[in-house]
Amino acid sequence: MFFNLIHTDVQCKARAGSIQTDHGTIETPIFMPVGTQGTVKTLSPRDLHEVKASIILGNTYHLYMRPGHKLIEKLGGLHKFIAWERAILTDSGGFQVFSLKELRKIDDEGVLFQSHLDGSYHKFTPELVLEIQRSLGSDIMMVLDECPPYPSTEEYALKSNELTIKWARQAREIFANWQPLYGHRQWLFAIVQGATFKHIREQSAKALIELDFPGYAIGGLAVGEPKEVMFDITDFCTEILPREKPRYLMGVGMPADILEAIERGVDMFDCVIPTRNARNGTVFTWQGKMVLKAARFKEDARPIDDECDCYTCQNFSRAYLRHLYNSNEILGLSLATIHNVHFYLNLVHKAREAILNDKFLTWKQKVLPEITKTVEN
Amino acid sequence: MFFNLIHTDVQCKARAGSIQTDHGTIETPIFMPVGTQGTVKTLSPRDLHEVKASIILGNTYHLYMRPGHKLIEKLGGLHKFIAWERAILTDSGGFQVFSLKELRKIDDEGVLFQSHLDGSYHKFTPELVLEIQRSLGSDIMMVLDECPPYPSTEEYALKSNELTIKWARQAREIFANWQPLYGHRQWLFAIVQGATFKHIREQSAKALIELDFPGYAIGGLAVGEPKEVMFDITDFCTEILPREKPRYLMGVGMPADILEAIERGVDMFDCVIPTRNARNGTVFTWQGKMVLKAARFKEDARPIDDECDCYTCQNFSRAYLRHLYNSNEILGLSLATIHNVHFYLNLVHKAREAILNDKFLTWKQKVLPEITKTVEN
Repeated sequence: MFFNLIHTDVQCKARAGSIQTDHGTIETPIFMPVGTQGTVKTLSPRDLHEVKASIILGNTYHLYMRPGHKLIEKLGGLHKFIAWERAILTDSGGFQVFSLKELRKIDDEGVLFQSHLDGSYHKFTPELVLEIQRSLGSDIMMVLDECPPYPSTEEYALKSNELTIKWARQAREIFANWQPLYGHRQWLFAIVQGATFKHIREQSAKALIELDFPGYAIGGLAVGEPKEVMFDITDFCTEILPREKPRYLMGVGMPADILEAIERGVDMFDCVIPTRNARNGTVFTWQGKMVLKAARFKEDARPIDDECDCYTCQNFSRAYLRHLYNSNEILGLSLATIHNVHFYLNLVHKAREAILNDKFLTWKQKVLPEITKTVEN
Repeated sequence: MFFNLIHTDVQCKARAGSIQTDHGTIETPIFMPVGTQGTVKTLSPRDLHEVKASIILGNTYHLYMRPGHKLIEKLGGLHKFIAWERAILTDSGGFQVFSLKELRKIDDEGVLFQSHLDGSYHKFTPELVLEIQRSLGSDIMMVLDECPPYPSTEEYALKSNELTIKWARQAREIFANWQPLYGHRQWLFAIVQGATFKHIREQSAKALIELDFPGYAIGGLAVGEPKEVMFDITDFCTEILPREKPRYLMGVGMPADILEAIERGVDMFDCVIPTRNARNGTVFTWQGKMVLKAARFKEDARPIDDECDCYTCQNFSRAYLRHLYNSNEILGLSLATIHNVHFYLNLVHKAREAILNDKFLTWKQKVLPEITKTVEN
């Protein structure tokens, strides 16, 4: 069994489960650190093992562009290329292409776009993005989708949704007739779209459910809409999506957002926030976020977080980390990234424990006011 | 006993010894990775442990400027600040100040200079640089010296040398009347100067030997003079320096330079080459140096060096490292640095083994033609 729904909290829709891949078990809810170009920025695989990452994300668009999926295939697949023995999810490239805006053109067959590196033309089709992900050998692959911007008209969202469903159907058929390359299994997830229109979301979800994918993502959120809308649409989608399949909310988010989405029945998350913020000197703690460069930490001998057992907090003071940032020393970036990824993984782990004890809401109400603060001393 | 001379090769002046500090034993010959601003660039303390670094170098000038030695003292000293439990050597700051050229003025009392960070004025005196190193709590400290540029006139070198000896005498007296701050012992080394004039080098060495320091550095080399001159002066100095004290050739060098200096009786080395070159994408191997960005490594599944057991070579291909450099990914910098520091430490370790077997010259003649090549495939 790919996904095992172990328990749903009696007081809300929060779920604890597990996903079985040929690269290990993933306990859900899970956060997936983003490894855009074949590396979770500043971290080595052993750093990721140490913070207990069970799955990381790779970006199909970026790896296709550089170094190229054929090169990675020649070198034995993405796991071997980046020396990562646990699970990998790759996105479809759709969202990156969507972000290119001026440089893309969508038609029935796919998306024509220009490379951000050299301006060369490429066309992502449902077939090509699957081929790329087959070469990469990710454990979980995503179908090509079209992600409508926020705001979108109903007309645009409807038309876009038809395309996403059509592409998902094509991908499902292609996938049914191939063999993976590296002796481990691959699973293909579909992406529910429909912008902020519930009837389109419903239409999207139902059409994709009919195609019977092993997992479903909720896409097209966290693209500028108000938080309430994001949570409302998420809540709406998880009402429709089958309970026996994992749900993945793409690109979310801040620690508080993740807790809100878990409450609404989401199992999987990815976001660049913990890694990107770390490189900017912002770290997350159970007492709120902390800007390491702040003058008040100049002589502060305490670790980032007294309660944290990550390598960074076990060894280094706020004063030292501040010194590393002020001196532009790379070690500061990796130490803060270790802490932030550890925090995110600890957050979903604690959420899971609360769910298993039917105490998710109580636990959430306790931690939410704290983690949304900014640490002032 | 601080220094134990275990063996001198029967065929040359190469020596194997050990230095006993309160932060562990250092087997000589040794290479000291440079941790300018309180971090060996891109490496964590556990990376350094793993490559078996037994001593690292900190820069008095840089740490005085930022974050300031008083701050480090307040936080328990440099070992604690940077979470490094093995030995630390700090330089005197003299060489950095010497490098400022336009921004400094030397008189009998010390060196007045302007900060490279904010233009503020500071004066390094023999007393102040000792005070700073006492606050840092390094295991081995260096006296303030004046480093004549290359080329220097005999007149300048003579005058400069008088100053260096005067400052060393002052430092010796100050040091004789203080207690270290952190419960571990500190040792003070003097620096032989004299530019490229043997009679001044002799005068310098003899005057400093009379002051009875526990170790002696050879300074003022690797500042632009021809390699033959550097080795000739090194050879001349080690003839005079006491055999029962460790000799440290400051700022040297390429792997081949280190072997040449070991042959001439040097025990300790520091240089930014392995770390700086790693960040530029150049790595060292037993088959020569390798430019990782080169197109010929694009699809190369081999590690940097088949014979190497460092973390990088045990896990990653040249193709992956090349990809990291081309994608400006920080992980590439730390993986290459791990390899290069490991290579340097392995180099001096193998030199030591050869010395203990009275085979240093044979071994050197075997490896030298290889390590000075550039790997072309």
